[in-house]
Amino acid sequence: MAEALRVGLAGLGTVGAGVVRVLDANAALIERRAGRAIKVVAVSARDRAKDRGIDLARFDWLDDTAALAKHAEVDVVVELIGGADGPALTLARATLGGGRGLVTANKAMLAHHGLELAAIAEERGAALKFEAAVAGGVPVIKGLREGTAANELSRVSGILNGTCNFILSKMESEGRDFAEVLAEAQALGYAEADPTFDIDGIDAAHKLAILASLSFGTRPAFGDVAVQGIAQVLGADIAEAAALGHRVRLVGIAEAGPQGLFQRVHPHLVPLDHPLAHVTGSTNAVVAEGDFVGRLLFQGAGAGEGPTASAVVADLIDIAREMDRGGQAGAPFAMPAAMLSEPTPADTGERRGRAYLRFTVQDRVGVLAEIAAAMRDAGVSIESLIQRGVSSDGHALVAIVTHDGPERCVAQALERLRGSQSLAGQPLWMPILA
Amino acid sequence: MAEALRVGLAGLGTVGAGVVRVLDANAALIERRAGRAIKVVAVSARDRAKDRGIDLARFDWLDDTAALAKHAEVDVVVELIGGADGPALTLARATLGGGRGLVTANKAMLAHHGLELAAIAEERGAALKFEAAVAGGVPVIKGLREGTAANELSRVSGILNGTCNFILSKMESEGRDFAEVLAEAQALGYAEADPTFDIDGIDAAHKLAILASLSFGTRPAFGDVAVQGIAQVLGADIAEAAALGHRVRLVGIAEAGPQGLFQRVHPHLVPLDHPLAHVTGSTNAVVAEGDFVGRLLFQGAGAGEGPTASAVVADLIDIAREMDRGGQAGAPFAMPAAMLSEPTPADTGERRGRAYLRFTVQDRVGVLAEIAAAMRDAGVSIESLIQRGVSSDGHALVAIVTHDGPERCVAQALERLRGSQSLAGQPLWMPILA
Repeated sequence: MAEALRVGLAGLGTVGAGVVRVLDANAALIERRAGRAIKVVAVSARDRAKDRGIDLARFDWLDDTAALAKHAEVDVVVELIGGADGPALTLARATLGGGRGLVTANKAMLAHHGLELAAIAEERGAALKFEAAVAGGVPVIKGLREGTAANELSRVSGILNGTCNFILSKMESEGRDFAEVLAEAQALGYAEADPTFDIDGIDAAHKLAILASLSFGTRPAFGDVAVQGIAQVLGADIAEAAALGHRVRLVGIAEAGPQGLFQRVHPHLVPLDHPLAHVTGSTNAVVAEGDFVGRLLFQGAGAGEGPTASAVVADLIDIAREMDRGGQAGAPFAMPAAMLSEPTPADTGERRGRAYLRFTVQDRVGVLAEIAAAMRDAGVSIESLIQRGVSSDGHALVAIVTHDGPERCVAQALERLRGSQSLAGQPLWMPILA
Repeated sequence: MAEALRVGLAGLGTVGAGVVRVLDANAALIERRAGRAIKVVAVSARDRAKDRGIDLARFDWLDDTAALAKHAEVDVVVELIGGADGPALTLARATLGGGRGLVTANKAMLAHHGLELAAIAEERGAALKFEAAVAGGVPVIKGLREGTAANELSRVSGILNGTCNFILSKMESEGRDFAEVLAEAQALGYAEADPTFDIDGIDAAHKLAILASLSFGTRPAFGDVAVQGIAQVLGADIAEAAALGHRVRLVGIAEAGPQGLFQRVHPHLVPLDHPLAHVTGSTNAVVAEGDFVGRLLFQGAGAGEGPTASAVVADLIDIAREMDRGGQAGAPFAMPAAMLSEPTPADTGERRGRAYLRFTVQDRVGVLAEIAAAMRDAGVSIESLIQRGVSSDGHALVAIVTHDGPERCVAQALERLRGSQSLAGQPLWMPILA
């Protein structure tokens, strides 16, 4: 058997401890599959004394995380610190710059600095792998980088944030409102104490930017992702959607076309015959659409210790398998960084589709006429409209489904209604996934 | 850019022509992703004159298929002839034996001779890849070989035959019987003129044997797969299943446990909360269950020119990407052939579960008592029983759902009823997927 692959592990939170547990539990099996043992030799984390349920005494402990990149016995660094910049980025640059492999679950860092890191990795012939960065244990990075490589992809879409999907599923199954379910999710540990990155869609947008780059051969362009989270979704919206045969899901969607690259994370109405409608709880799923392969679905646990650690170790096994082969690692973003094109952001106003609009309105004469006039004047054609009776706070709810049409017109209609005394709060617009 | 990967193509049926079309349509994109061009240089097929809609004049035509293995300009052979033995096997042995790569979609050959071919490939440092052999365009071979490599898998299951799923879905949605829908599927080209391999479950069993080997580190053991096809399933069974909240699917399932390796292809009742229940039409899907990753789902088009060619070309791209790396290809079955263990077939009698039983019976006194007594005497506990009124041929239908219990007891009950004058035809037994 060949010499072991020696790992330096930065970060010993849930996933870091999980990586140690996977490598311990399945050591013999992993050695057979990888062609060599995979051994953690050095670790670095904030708190040495914390009980993580694993024996750390057998590893070399480094107080200085950056020193992992230069550790004499480390072949590959696993970065699980998190954060787009700071120590994670410093470590990533130093590791790859030194010609050593890097495995990371850090979607924020990849979305912001993926191009730079890929270029360093390619120049130094070092592996840069990040299966765990998107959809936890689901091998969708590999699926897009390798599995669909024969195809021109037209669209990649997915449910990329387990916290949001857990909350929306629970709102749906229990008929409850967002704030209440979020509080419960936090109490249960399904949502962070500060859930902003999740519920505002930022985490999903980081992941979408990575998927879009892999799918379309463009540079990761997180800044071009239009992002809206789920905090505005009411239980009433989910009920209206259900009555229309749809489910509400936070969907990330990227499309490449003649008008450029479109990237959006937004709550959508998903029809029941679409595979993403059946993704419940904290599950993640990605749909890739290619010119020859058609529509592929990858689905599984999007977060958590076991699934995420499984993806990290899969990357380590890939590196171990490749070690005998001269060290030329593949391009991290499916093609060399220098060939990735600068994407032109598509004009979302040019997009067409059906949409769901919901207005919370004052209960008084003329409100419906005002909304209907704004729609008419902006050229929005209404497929259905429903007004529900007055709630305890004296407001009524108007839900509209539009016919297929340009998003520009819907935006104009909402602009016309901005500041109207008839409206109580912001209207909610959700595209209907086609 | 590096030198092209030169392909010799054996077989120019639907998939073979599709491979040429994919390589033509996406040539520039594939070159960027693969790091080199991928070019067909030589082809061999039965009929040179047949119009396949592609220009063959640019390729070297070989009347002798086996000569592809020795062609001076061929780096890798794509085998799309089919058949477990014969010219496909001769070509595969010669190609790998000569140290050249082989890409094949031939599940029958791999199920029967996969171990031998993997051993030759490893000895000669040649690539042996077969993504297209299972689930068409869905990258599930890669998913199991690499994506789940950190896990001990407990179960792999799937809908592995598009023809059967098309027929069962159509029986379900249109309330029709098997023979009628099969005839229509044949007329539409969704089923072969001789559909035996598909509807008898043989094709699915070939694929299951490959998935089991990859998942559990065992030698492919097609002979140990218990196989039953879908020809006995009645429209009435599908209706009864629906009333119970289930769908009927031909499921291939393999489990590794202390009692050995269990492999079965059989029509199952699938509960609606299981992902395989939502796989309709000719779609394929595979579920893998691992100790850390949990349950993963891979889904997409299981057959057809585009999807299958997409998988073949993905394998070629993998080989092209690896060409600079010293030629040490990975183990075809996830670990070296010499490490694959000889599986011990599990005793199916030891399996426990709920089951659906359907009897077509003579409409006369005492039939129900006879069936109930056989169940009781064999120790089968009945959860529900329904008898439907007499059909036009004078027969009634008795459908039973058993409580959880050993399959051995159900088999004994059926044995007690064998030859009974009360029964019109064979009873149907279907496990309920848990």
